[in-house]
Amino acid sequence: MGSYTIAVKLSQRYEHAVEAVRSALAEQGFGILTEIDLQATFKTKLGVDVAPQVILGACRPALAHEALRAEPSIAAVLPCNVVVRALDDATTLVEAFDPEAMMGLADSPALRTIADDAKQRITAALASLDLPEEDD
Amino acid sequence: MGSYTIAVKLSQRYEHAVEAVRSALAEQGFGILTEIDLQATFKTKLGVDVAPQVILGACRPALAHEALRAEPSIAAVLPCNVVVRALDDATTLVEAFDPEAMMGLADSPALRTIADDAKQRITAALASLDLPEEDD
Repeated sequence: MGSYTIAVKLSQRYEHAVEAVRSALAEQGFGILTEIDLQATFKTKLGVDVAPQVILGACRPALAHEALRAEPSIAAVLPCNVVVRALDDATTLVEAFDPEAMMGLADSPALRTIADDAKQRITAALASLDLPEEDD
Repeated sequence: MGSYTIAVKLSQRYEHAVEAVRSALAEQGFGILTEIDLQATFKTKLGVDVAPQVILGACRPALAHEALRAEPSIAAVLPCNVVVRALDDATTLVEAFDPEAMMGLADSPALRTIADDAKQRITAALASLDLPEEDD
């Protein structure tokens, strides 16, 4: 795991984990603005096979707006990516860009509280996932 | 401008610049995988007005694939965002995430050549934009 990410490994199959991540992010006020199916992209563009994985671009508009007011350039690292990747048939890794890593890029005091808020929400979303898979 | 971005200010109106950026990125082998109209998003979600601006998620699949092989966590900062923002009616700022800033996040020697390649291509794309607007 990168030091610039927040991650949780789930004992859930990939498809289930992706839906759980969407719900957990929505609970924290994040909409999904972008979605990249990396497995499909690499298969189509390069003809190579990779594990099922998707990059979800999560955005809480009020936070994004505050961040851009504090530092317009921060758009270059928005939205907050949450990557869901199958490790095997029963295990899935969820790895989000750590909003605190923004601070390593943009040393702006005005961004600090915004990044803290975002980190707290992303961490809460990931923590809510770390539960046994329900029967379904 | 952030130290984590590569930027160029163009004497072009916004709509023209957005199309020029798309072409310049395509010339360097980047497809646009995601697109977020920030002005529309903030208007819809928050009812606030911001300058016309769009985040284009640029991806050169072969480079992204190499980067993920070197470090799977790097998906959290993909694709490479290129932000186009109207400064006024006749001036537009194009600001891309600097692939070299990845190296500040992920200190992986294997990523170095990949980030260098990406940076060279993004820089070339932005340099190609810095020309007087054609009559049309």
